[in-house]
Amino acid sequence: MIRGVTERPVTVLAGGVGGARFLQGVIDVLPPERVVVVGNVGDDVEPHGLHVSPDLDTVLYTLTGWIDEDKGWGVRGDSDRALERARELGADAWFWLGDLDIGLHLARTEALRRGEPLSAVTARLAERLGLPLRLIPATDDRLRTMIGTPEGEIDFQTYYVRHRHADRVTGIRFEGAELARPAPGVVEAVRDAAAIVIAPSNPLISIGPILAVPGIRALLAARSAPCVAVSPIVGGRALRGPAAAMLESLGHEPSAAGVAAIYAGLVDALVIDQQDAELAGAVERHGMRAVVADTIMRDAAARERLARTALDAAGAVA
Amino acid sequence: MIRGVTERPVTVLAGGVGGARFLQGVIDVLPPERVVVVGNVGDDVEPHGLHVSPDLDTVLYTLTGWIDEDKGWGVRGDSDRALERARELGADAWFWLGDLDIGLHLARTEALRRGEPLSAVTARLAERLGLPLRLIPATDDRLRTMIGTPEGEIDFQTYYVRHRHADRVTGIRFEGAELARPAPGVVEAVRDAAAIVIAPSNPLISIGPILAVPGIRALLAARSAPCVAVSPIVGGRALRGPAAAMLESLGHEPSAAGVAAIYAGLVDALVIDQQDAELAGAVERHGMRAVVADTIMRDAAARERLARTALDAAGAVA
Repeated sequence: MIRGVTERPVTVLAGGVGGARFLQGVIDVLPPERVVVVGNVGDDVEPHGLHVSPDLDTVLYTLTGWIDEDKGWGVRGDSDRALERARELGADAWFWLGDLDIGLHLARTEALRRGEPLSAVTARLAERLGLPLRLIPATDDRLRTMIGTPEGEIDFQTYYVRHRHADRVTGIRFEGAELARPAPGVVEAVRDAAAIVIAPSNPLISIGPILAVPGIRALLAARSAPCVAVSPIVGGRALRGPAAAMLESLGHEPSAAGVAAIYAGLVDALVIDQQDAELAGAVERHGMRAVVADTIMRDAAARERLARTALDAAGAVA
Repeated sequence: MIRGVTERPVTVLAGGVGGARFLQGVIDVLPPERVVVVGNVGDDVEPHGLHVSPDLDTVLYTLTGWIDEDKGWGVRGDSDRALERARELGADAWFWLGDLDIGLHLARTEALRRGEPLSAVTARLAERLGLPLRLIPATDDRLRTMIGTPEGEIDFQTYYVRHRHADRVTGIRFEGAELARPAPGVVEAVRDAAAIVIAPSNPLISIGPILAVPGIRALLAARSAPCVAVSPIVGGRALRGPAAAMLESLGHEPSAAGVAAIYAGLVDALVIDQQDAELAGAVERHGMRAVVADTIMRDAAARERLARTALDAAGAVA
């Protein structure tokens, strides 16, 4: 049983912006205290010595109302006095940090330096910010998504933010994954779940690092509970970020069918967009049901509908 | 010859607030480009992962007009959004950091993490802020002032800020000093100086860490240029900070004569306050001249007069 979760949880594997928005829908459908999120730490980064967990923070900020809705990340209305000053003083400050955001990173970094595990820090930040659901990083150990490019391997944020994901991706490697252990609660969240949902996040760089933690993929493959994923690829394009180009350059089909191939054996159903209805057969050839729905999360009602569809497919809605 | 200094420099060893205020007087008397400051790094600290060099920063901020004059440190009018947020999120944020100040620490920390030496970082920050004189940390290596107390040894900022220098000091140790090397320019600044001045800083914890860097004390002892110190103890009290109590608890006389004993063999003259005129004989028994003056730096004119007195005693004023 997971601390704070009194019945079998509904467990969601989620990345950043897309995952967080999907979770907003999930807690419109389910009591938040039933929901456990296993979050991605592969894109964690230490700009200027501060430990930033962008995906965890996006979930934190989105579900506590602090998020900058337009950007999809960061704190709404945040100032950037510190970062502007750093720039004036010659810092190569390509990773944006608002002042309130820095406050969170100061708190996290201090706790990590004291030896507190990331999962404990995250739980405290979540409690202080009033996060209604339980958020657990996939691992407390160092795991970093490294992106292979024609010019060599770079860390994820260099690829994503600094190079604006313009490099051709020739490979993805999860540095430290072999030695990483699931954070406390992760095994229970997957093993004991009443249902598992994979949010519409990038399967390679948002969900991939979670599945790369030894044991998690195997637990998912051996699951007794139903598992449903939502395709982040609609009409051959990612709604956000570089997923489609990345899939293609790594030899996957940049479509819902390509997503199905990646999740083969791990999920029982894939929710695909109504634009991709003709791919249902291709999806089902990977051993999962295709559930056709409107997957564009344009507003709260659409997020709720999508969440309900996915949860329903996973048998998690009464 | 030191970069940016075209004639034999006047070299000042300085700590934080008292040293910085004294330097304001120095550059009213001498062209700033003749002045090289060797600064203290023994009280450097890494709150929340940020590298803070309080004494260097106080010199930087004081001589570029950014200083909060009332506090004597930090940036005038600075906000503290990040720190307040960190506190709301449960951080044990006992070391005050303003937002603009954090900007400087972000820039410094990033550069240090890239492998840049502290002296190079400091030079760049100084150039960006428009520091009129040259500021060199005593060492680029890690050197930390550790304070012995009846409850055990603590780092300097824990003693000074967190415990508000209320502990009885039973010992002082400069961790890392044995392996520290003078930063580039420090040896030249002391060896080739036309005159050397030790600012009215705490001899044990502001000047002590500078002299603890192997080679610096010996260079000072073997100097050909005159060296003059200014006593920070007036009438048996420190104008700021715990110098008097610290001197006493470590077996030194908490007076200008006690300061003279500490600097014996290193200085040719000690500037003492007019309140302490009767100590002139006791000072001179330590092999140095006593120069009696008004040493209270109550305003710019007083700072200039004190600087002129010290520089004149060192033969550095035409």
